[in-house]
Amino acid sequence: MTAAQADIEELSIKAHTLTEALPYIKRFWGKTVVIKYGGNAVSDEPKSLDTFVEDVVLLNFVGIRVVVVHGGGPQIDALLSRLGHASSFVRGLRVTDAETLESVKMVLLGQMNPLLVSRINLHGALGVGVSGADGSMVLCRAISEEHGYVGKVVRVDPSLLENLLQMGRIPVVASIGVDEEAQLYNVNADLVASELAGALKAEKLVFLTNVEGIRGDASDPSTLIRQMKADELKEMLQDNSISGGMIPKANSALLAIERGVASVHLLDGRLPHALLLEVFTDHGIGTMLYA
Amino acid sequence: MTAAQADIEELSIKAHTLTEALPYIKRFWGKTVVIKYGGNAVSDEPKSLDTFVEDVVLLNFVGIRVVVVHGGGPQIDALLSRLGHASSFVRGLRVTDAETLESVKMVLLGQMNPLLVSRINLHGALGVGVSGADGSMVLCRAISEEHGYVGKVVRVDPSLLENLLQMGRIPVVASIGVDEEAQLYNVNADLVASELAGALKAEKLVFLTNVEGIRGDASDPSTLIRQMKADELKEMLQDNSISGGMIPKANSALLAIERGVASVHLLDGRLPHALLLEVFTDHGIGTMLYA
Amino acid sequence: MTAAQADIEELSIKAHTLTEALPYIKRFWGKTVVIKYGGNAVSDEPKSLDTFVEDVVLLNFVGIRVVVVHGGGPQIDALLSRLGHASSFVRGLRVTDAETLESVKMVLLGQMNPLLVSRINLHGALGVGVSGADGSMVLCRAISEEHGYVGKVVRVDPSLLENLLQMGRIPVVASIGVDEEAQLYNVNADLVASELAGALKAEKLVFLTNVEGIRGDASDPSTLIRQMKADELKEMLQDNSISGGMIPKANSALLAIERGVASVHLLDGRLPHALLLEVFTDHGIGTMLYA
Amino acid sequence: MTAAQADIEELSIKAHTLTEALPYIKRFWGKTVVIKYGGNAVSDEPKSLDTFVEDVVLLNFVGIRVVVVHGGGPQIDALLSRLGHASSFVRGLRVTDAETLESVKMVLLGQMNPLLVSRINLHGALGVGVSGADGSMVLCRAISEEHGYVGKVVRVDPSLLENLLQMGRIPVVASIGVDEEAQLYNVNADLVASELAGALKAEKLVFLTNVEGIRGDASDPSTLIRQMKADELKEMLQDNSISGGMIPKANSALLAIERGVASVHLLDGRLPHALLLEVFTDHGIGTMLYA
Amino acid sequence: MTAAQADIEELSIKAHTLTEALPYIKRFWGKTVVIKYGGNAVSDEPKSLDTFVEDVVLLNFVGIRVVVVHGGGPQIDALLSRLGHASSFVRGLRVTDAETLESVKMVLLGQMNPLLVSRINLHGALGVGVSGADGSMVLCRAISEEHGYVGKVVRVDPSLLENLLQMGRIPVVASIGVDEEAQLYNVNADLVASELAGALKAEKLVFLTNVEGIRGDASDPSTLIRQMKADELKEMLQDNSISGGMIPKANSALLAIERGVASVHLLDGRLPHALLLEVFTDHGIGTMLYA
Amino acid sequence: MTAAQADIEELSIKAHTLTEALPYIKRFWGKTVVIKYGGNAVSDEPKSLDTFVEDVVLLNFVGIRVVVVHGGGPQIDALLSRLGHASSFVRGLRVTDAETLESVKMVLLGQMNPLLVSRINLHGALGVGVSGADGSMVLCRAISEEHGYVGKVVRVDPSLLENLLQMGRIPVVASIGVDEEAQLYNVNADLVASELAGALKAEKLVFLTNVEGIRGDASDPSTLIRQMKADELKEMLQDNSISGGMIPKANSALLAIERGVASVHLLDGRLPHALLLEVFTDHGIGTMLYA
Repeated sequence: MTAAQADIEELSIKAHTLTEALPYIKRFWGKTVVIKYGGNAVSDEPKSLDTFVEDVVLLNFVGIRVVVVHGGGPQIDALLSRLGHASSFVRGLRVTDAETLESVKMVLLGQMNPLLVSRINLHGALGVGVSGADGSMVLCRAISEEHGYVGKVVRVDPSLLENLLQMGRIPVVASIGVDEEAQLYNVNADLVASELAGALKAEKLVFLTNVEGIRGDASDPSTLIRQMKADELKEMLQDNSISGGMIPKANSALLAIERGVASVHLLDGRLPHALLLEVFTDHGIGTMLYA
Repeated sequence: MTAAQADIEELSIKAHTLTEALPYIKRFWGKTVVIKYGGNAVSDEPKSLDTFVEDVVLLNFVGIRVVVVHGGGPQIDALLSRLGHASSFVRGLRVTDAETLESVKMVLLGQMNPLLVSRINLHGALGVGVSGADGSMVLCRAISEEHGYVGKVVRVDPSLLENLLQMGRIPVVASIGVDEEAQLYNVNADLVASELAGALKAEKLVFLTNVEGIRGDASDPSTLIRQMKADELKEMLQDNSISGGMIPKANSALLAIERGVASVHLLDGRLPHALLLEVFTDHGIGTMLYA
Repeated sequence: MTAAQADIEELSIKAHTLTEALPYIKRFWGKTVVIKYGGNAVSDEPKSLDTFVEDVVLLNFVGIRVVVVHGGGPQIDALLSRLGHASSFVRGLRVTDAETLESVKMVLLGQMNPLLVSRINLHGALGVGVSGADGSMVLCRAISEEHGYVGKVVRVDPSLLENLLQMGRIPVVASIGVDEEAQLYNVNADLVASELAGALKAEKLVFLTNVEGIRGDASDPSTLIRQMKADELKEMLQDNSISGGMIPKANSALLAIERGVASVHLLDGRLPHALLLEVFTDHGIGTMLYA
Repeated sequence: MTAAQADIEELSIKAHTLTEALPYIKRFWGKTVVIKYGGNAVSDEPKSLDTFVEDVVLLNFVGIRVVVVHGGGPQIDALLSRLGHASSFVRGLRVTDAETLESVKMVLLGQMNPLLVSRINLHGALGVGVSGADGSMVLCRAISEEHGYVGKVVRVDPSLLENLLQMGRIPVVASIGVDEEAQLYNVNADLVASELAGALKAEKLVFLTNVEGIRGDASDPSTLIRQMKADELKEMLQDNSISGGMIPKANSALLAIERGVASVHLLDGRLPHALLLEVFTDHGIGTMLYA
Repeated sequence: MTAAQADIEELSIKAHTLTEALPYIKRFWGKTVVIKYGGNAVSDEPKSLDTFVEDVVLLNFVGIRVVVVHGGGPQIDALLSRLGHASSFVRGLRVTDAETLESVKMVLLGQMNPLLVSRINLHGALGVGVSGADGSMVLCRAISEEHGYVGKVVRVDPSLLENLLQMGRIPVVASIGVDEEAQLYNVNADLVASELAGALKAEKLVFLTNVEGIRGDASDPSTLIRQMKADELKEMLQDNSISGGMIPKANSALLAIERGVASVHLLDGRLPHALLLEVFTDHGIGTMLYA
Repeated sequence: MTAAQADIEELSIKAHTLTEALPYIKRFWGKTVVIKYGGNAVSDEPKSLDTFVEDVVLLNFVGIRVVVVHGGGPQIDALLSRLGHASSFVRGLRVTDAETLESVKMVLLGQMNPLLVSRINLHGALGVGVSGADGSMVLCRAISEEHGYVGKVVRVDPSLLENLLQMGRIPVVASIGVDEEAQLYNVNADLVASELAGALKAEKLVFLTNVEGIRGDASDPSTLIRQMKADELKEMLQDNSISGGMIPKANSALLAIERGVASVHLLDGRLPHALLLEVFTDHGIGTMLYA
């Protein structure tokens, strides 16, 4: 076998890999997929951003309508600490006073959002950054008096996203909301992703997190659940079989199912190309939830 | 005359005022107007934001395609000082190192842009915030090595703005640019406004500043020039009759004329409803420049 | 205060007046308003035509879809008398023989309609005159044998008006109908306006007449009713509290409400800018009827 | 041969006749044909209106964009005489004072136009009557001071006709013009037809008159010219070989050729289905003029 | 009467014939008509193809959406015999082995389809040949094991035809189906026509055959039934009053009625212009079936 | 490493392979690629059809507008021999009498075309088979009297292909042409592909053949030319460095370049996924020709 032949053979294998994706491309062509990308993903594994962006762009080019929703927890912590502003927490939620809100806005809109958009645009003029205030997309009110400017979603208007998707763009949404008096709010990004996925009648909602998925026994990696019904997850929540940071994520996932999203996926975003693997193979990465 | 009659009469006068705007509405219906709104305008006269927003929304409702471009100089200074980061200037331009750029992005995208968008949206889901990185709209490269991340506009792609305008939105543009390696840049907002006005074939470009306009004699308010040709302004620049902060503004205005914008207006944005007066009356507020 | 400053101040007040209309513009943007303009309005107060036309054109430019319907009673009387053709009336309706019908057509189509259209077009190529025969828009049959060519509306086809509105035109409709044998009819303009408003799903139907509105006590101007429910008007009709020329007008208004029009307004068209005041202020001019 | 067979045979011949029109239908499908229909045609031969209307509707259904332009000379004479208003003529043109103009408008817009429209609409909601004032379609100025309100065409705006044609309607145009001060004018219908045909880039302009066409020798019917170049007609005009009422018609025809219309046809409209024969056969009816 | 006058008179009669078609053109304008054209029609009466094609093209030009479906029985027999491949029949259906299927495909797609398409295109670039495999239009499965590749229609997807009709084309459909494993099938053309007519919500389905229509008494031509309800035909089938080759045709016709087609026509395609006569006259050619 | 981990790792590699195609997908998104698929490809290596079809469908799903053109030489030989009809050749071209033409049509339209279409449609309702007669797409005349029905392309009308591509279909074109008298012709498929690629302003034309590409020395595989300019190929043709079946292929390739196609590729279609490798890698398979 000559060198050239070896090359050709290797290329043929690669070409074959491309065609293996055909059934998945067909199945999701023209469908909407909402992806929640966590701030952890960026900070824990800087290089993973590039493979994530490649995945997003590839999904777009093969005809999937992709919406990215992001938060930025660790980055907000960093800025607050730099500004010497201490945070307090009530029932697991950061109390958001006016100054904290400024930092949240500056991080999400001024750091995370342009970072994602500009990286996506290395592959063409695709990414457009928006927040829930743009086009009054995410209407909020305060979740409680004591939490300050932490918002609870009252109504979402997906028309701006629909328009951007129709133009062939990839909207990148920062989890900021707005009320009817033009006050901005800090909103949990998982909830924003669920609400938008519902309003867009998305086929899939994918949470890229820093855990593998839901485990039958939280402490035992071998008990990772590949697929489960929404009702089963509800039971696990009632049984307290779900704990810690997974609780709000599970509730967001259930909300999306309730809003009519066909399947919700919880994946470890640190795994290279986790998104692509989940959409383009039958092999379960993480946990898939369905109605 | 009864009270009710007096009311009716007053109302009739108001109705008459509305119809006086008819010839202007007809003239600009369907045309594009780009407005540069300075950071000073917000900080000097907080209430002026509300009347500015009313003007912008009214222009939109009477059929004008409005684009707002904003900077945020004073607010950037405030954040840098709060973060204890000193700025140095070279030939009148702020040297923008990585940390300064972070502050620029956080202020423009995280503070100024959502402020303008959310205020506009008090009047309906109209405003959509974008930066020059969205849709790769403002392509830049470094203006010089010593200035760091200060960008020089290489090319603008107005397609995202065209799409937003077509959907009936009011785009609010933060003066951030991006290069081909996804590096963001701080770009002078006047230049961004001029380039976008040119690319959008705008009818008018309006600079809302904190001076009345161009004066024949900079120290004498009574020498305000109402209308002038671009060539006259060029001569004044060569004669050094223009000085200080007006020099870059004059250059931006000339650039817009060169790019094909029909008229450029320099107004004092602190005057209530300055924008509306300029568009809807024949009475000259500030200085109008034309080819 | 210098003269220039005084000017500026006056202009600012005018600009403020413009922005006061914003909430109304927003509320009616894209909505349809049908206006019945009576022949009396032209003959009683010739100058009022100009302010009426300004109002119509302004409504159009701020995004309202305007349809004008007109009759021409006094002008028809004048032509008939000039041609020496006496009219007889049966139960309040003019008996319309072939010769009378010729006069009706000549006045409505040959005098009133081009007058309104050409005045509107002083503000741009907006007005397009049509009659109920154009595009078979108003299908009629004879109201009774003894009334001759007085038509009763059988069905309206609003597609021609929809098309003209979509092109940005202001249709001006003469109250002529047609039957299935191509016979034309004289139709009451109030009824035509009500039927068209219903078929166009109009937001508002405005009758510009020569009375102020409906009074609780017909002889006492101070009893003008600002707002009333359709049911209250029905009761007044049954109680005979409504009399004379107001009876058919009241019935037309009730018909429009029945056809689904949100509100019907009876105004004194002789008041300058009555139309604009009714649409653009909360202050009640005349009487507003709603379901 | 049974009776039924005879029927079938007759029907087959009819079907064959239909298919004979195929080459003409193909040739003119999607093309615009402007038809000038004279007032004489209606008054001389009342029944001819029905066959004319059938022809117009058939052309429309086989995919030709048809515009009808009409005058109403004899009918105007009748009304003026009835109103006891004498006409004077200067250089062959009726002096049109304000009162004469009123009669012209009443006849064209109030009698002729709705007559044509309502007859066309016996075949569906196709006809829409317009005048040159609608949509400011025919802009005029006075032809001379002494002629009063006789208009000379300054500019035509075919956009309203284009829109109506696009909706599948048949516009019926009364030869009324308007100037920039909203003054209406009496305009020669042949000229209006020529100008509109030019502006619409019509394939054909057909004058339906009460003469057979242009004759080599005006007094000898056997010298009817079937086809001629525009230049030949110009020479005949210079030679005074054309006389009387044919002179203005010839000039209008030449104007249309100059405006880019491919062919102009002068036909005797009293011949049943003259229009259809001209468009759908190769046999020359009347005279065809081409560049 | 001169020769020219005689000509003109003859032409006038022809023109009148054209206008007689007006009511039918109006009734069917924009409607869909599916025509089953049998292989017999071509072989029995070669010249009839030209008049058939003229009819099809004329229907298209007067605004009817025409779809032609064809089989090719006699031509298939000829090819099979030439290739020395004998056919066997089970319950009236040709057993279709792989080799027979090849011949069916070669005749329908390689002979009949391009013949029809190219003849239609003598009148413009109108005809586009397709089979049930194109765009997966006719999905089949085997009708029984013993019949081999004889298909039974499982589902039709009319989107390709809708698209072609929208572009103004005349689709010519060969009666080939396909299953989900890409196996092609021989499908009865009458059934394909009925299923497509149903899916396209056709106004009419016309079977051009070599018999006159349905007779009350199969042996007596004078008992031809002009119009009948679907229920009456069902009864005749149950009574065995229908026999031979008419049975499957009757069943296809009933299927179309069931699928919502307004009327089904059985005509003798050998009669010149039979199609046009059926669509454009009230005189019954053949038998019309309705719900 | 656990089994699951091994799986994940393998999947990650596959995912990475997918993203490697991104730059190529971006470059060709929305572009048109015409592919000539030879009859040899099917007969020599039956399984290659499946991988070819996968490649075509994948290109379509990633946004490339794909047109497949095919011939069927070997299959035509087979049918002719089966029908006992000998072929003669004149100057390398098969003399095509009426009977030969029938066989050509039957093979191309009845065998090859539905085979390709139905295989493509295993991946969705994408493929639509057409010939040059459909929509009068490929207009021909006889190449010479002695060659009979061998066609020479006179003009191509790509509108049908444009329409099909716009609907998202994959047109599959059989190399049949038609003249203005509806006579069909046998046309060289390479020429049809070149002409269509030119008319569609294709980015690429790919010839899938049974040779590797063009060699500097025809007898030495190691002299395969990876890239060459059109002018170099012309020189080789003049030098007689190109011989045999490669001559007409080289001429077709040059024709496409002349018609404005950016690059023409000659590949060995027997190599699995040759098409995908050529479009999606920088590694040269075969020979690429450019202007």
